[in-house]
Amino acid sequence: MPMTAAEIEAFIRAQFPQAEGFGNIEAIAHDSLQMRLPFKDAYLRPGGTLSGPTLMSLADTATYYLLLAKLGPVALAVTTSLTMHFLRRPAARDAIAVARLLKLGKRIAVCDVLITVDGDDAPVAHATVSYALPPGTVVP
Amino acid sequence: MPMTAAEIEAFIRAQFPQAEGFGNIEAIAHDSLQMRLPFKDAYLRPGGTLSGPTLMSLADTATYYLLLAKLGPVALAVTTSLTMHFLRRPAARDAIAVARLLKLGKRIAVCDVLITVDGDDAPVAHATVSYALPPGTVVP
Amino acid sequence: MPMTAAEIEAFIRAQFPQAEGFGNIEAIAHDSLQMRLPFKDAYLRPGGTLSGPTLMSLADTATYYLLLAKLGPVALAVTTSLTMHFLRRPAARDAIAVARLLKLGKRIAVCDVLITVDGDDAPVAHATVSYALPPGTVVP
Amino acid sequence: MPMTAAEIEAFIRAQFPQAEGFGNIEAIAHDSLQMRLPFKDAYLRPGGTLSGPTLMSLADTATYYLLLAKLGPVALAVTTSLTMHFLRRPAARDAIAVARLLKLGKRIAVCDVLITVDGDDAPVAHATVSYALPPGTVVP
Repeated sequence: MPMTAAEIEAFIRAQFPQAEGFGNIEAIAHDSLQMRLPFKDAYLRPGGTLSGPTLMSLADTATYYLLLAKLGPVALAVTTSLTMHFLRRPAARDAIAVARLLKLGKRIAVCDVLITVDGDDAPVAHATVSYALPPGTVVP
Repeated sequence: MPMTAAEIEAFIRAQFPQAEGFGNIEAIAHDSLQMRLPFKDAYLRPGGTLSGPTLMSLADTATYYLLLAKLGPVALAVTTSLTMHFLRRPAARDAIAVARLLKLGKRIAVCDVLITVDGDDAPVAHATVSYALPPGTVVP
Repeated sequence: MPMTAAEIEAFIRAQFPQAEGFGNIEAIAHDSLQMRLPFKDAYLRPGGTLSGPTLMSLADTATYYLLLAKLGPVALAVTTSLTMHFLRRPAARDAIAVARLLKLGKRIAVCDVLITVDGDDAPVAHATVSYALPPGTVVP
Repeated sequence: MPMTAAEIEAFIRAQFPQAEGFGNIEAIAHDSLQMRLPFKDAYLRPGGTLSGPTLMSLADTATYYLLLAKLGPVALAVTTSLTMHFLRRPAARDAIAVARLLKLGKRIAVCDVLITVDGDDAPVAHATVSYALPPGTVVP
């Protein structure tokens, strides 16, 4: 893989210095990546569940990290679409996202992402995320 | 319409006291609602454009407000799916969302939402948002 | 516009000689196109409503025709995603689709499509359709 | 499981007597179902690939069959949304769909579906499909 978890996180800190709380990579496999978003009160919506934007942001980040792992540092990849289904009320815990690569073309990449919360296998959200890759991207 | 813009905003403040920056309702018509999200630096992502989660959150909020306008105070409506296409890089300005009601059934409501930024008619994002309505919802 | 309705329909007949029943273009405006799919029994599903694949196929066709109208003969454009929400049971009548151009970039085009049936303004389905455009596409 | 593959196929033949070519169930597991759509020339689009409507119809059918397997004969379940990403050009072969249950609530069920063609593991399409379940549905 062109980038390790540590290299991806260093790349993100350099590119997005104001960012924090994007979550931590827990595992990278051939065509998938698992990350964890440590719980913060700021992620809650009324009722004590993780908010929709928190889950959508996590799905987008997990996809981007997986593309970095596969392609190396591609700063200019941009999200073109995100479809999320909200499946269950997500408890106030760490969220865990597993992104799976469905397609890695020269111009478009597509992943799906399954999100659970710590300690419960039932998925709370499922997303499909598309990215446009910059011209000249070299796909392994 | 069961609720006016002022009533919706008062309902939101009462239900979601910790919330702020959900945006302001600018117009309510028979089957549509326009709202404005005043620009904040916190909405930016690197590159100086409005972040994806900001736009997705705005689309979800505009849909919820339109359902409140049509149905009255329905605290328990929940988002079941959101599909967003990102169309253009959104400049660092107020975002304006126009939600349009496509279906208002007893159990499911569907809207689409077109988002622009202040001073530019070209859409920056389009969303389709589904809500599940609580049993017993009275649809006008 | 680079192609008229008659030119689009002639192009389709030449490119897809085995095709029939793709529907007829009723109007082309700057950024939208309306087409009609004349009713056939073959489109019905049990219960006497138009089938989902019929509506999805119509949404895809209306998008492709609108791209032809804007770009000229682009045989190699391919659908990359289609999201459809089914809103009401569509009666056994002609279906009418109005496609609206949301984005026409060098590599990606996005339309949304609203489908009704003849004689009833309530939408039966809404789609968002993305196309990948071949490299070298000249966008007006 | 409330229904076996043979019971589902008999139910479909009884409910949809004019239907044919919906495909054959190959396996039912706890929360997934695999089916095969035997190749027919009628499924081709120009260029010799399986058409988009064929794949979308297969994704919808696989989801419906999995719901039947889980719930028993629920004739009135209806598709409320379908999102498909087209990943690769599908060769002119049998298509194989694996549907996975993501949520089975009282009112809404959500599956995702991965489609390949016979002899090639690379997915050609991915769908997320939502169904509305009739009131009174008893979920196991």
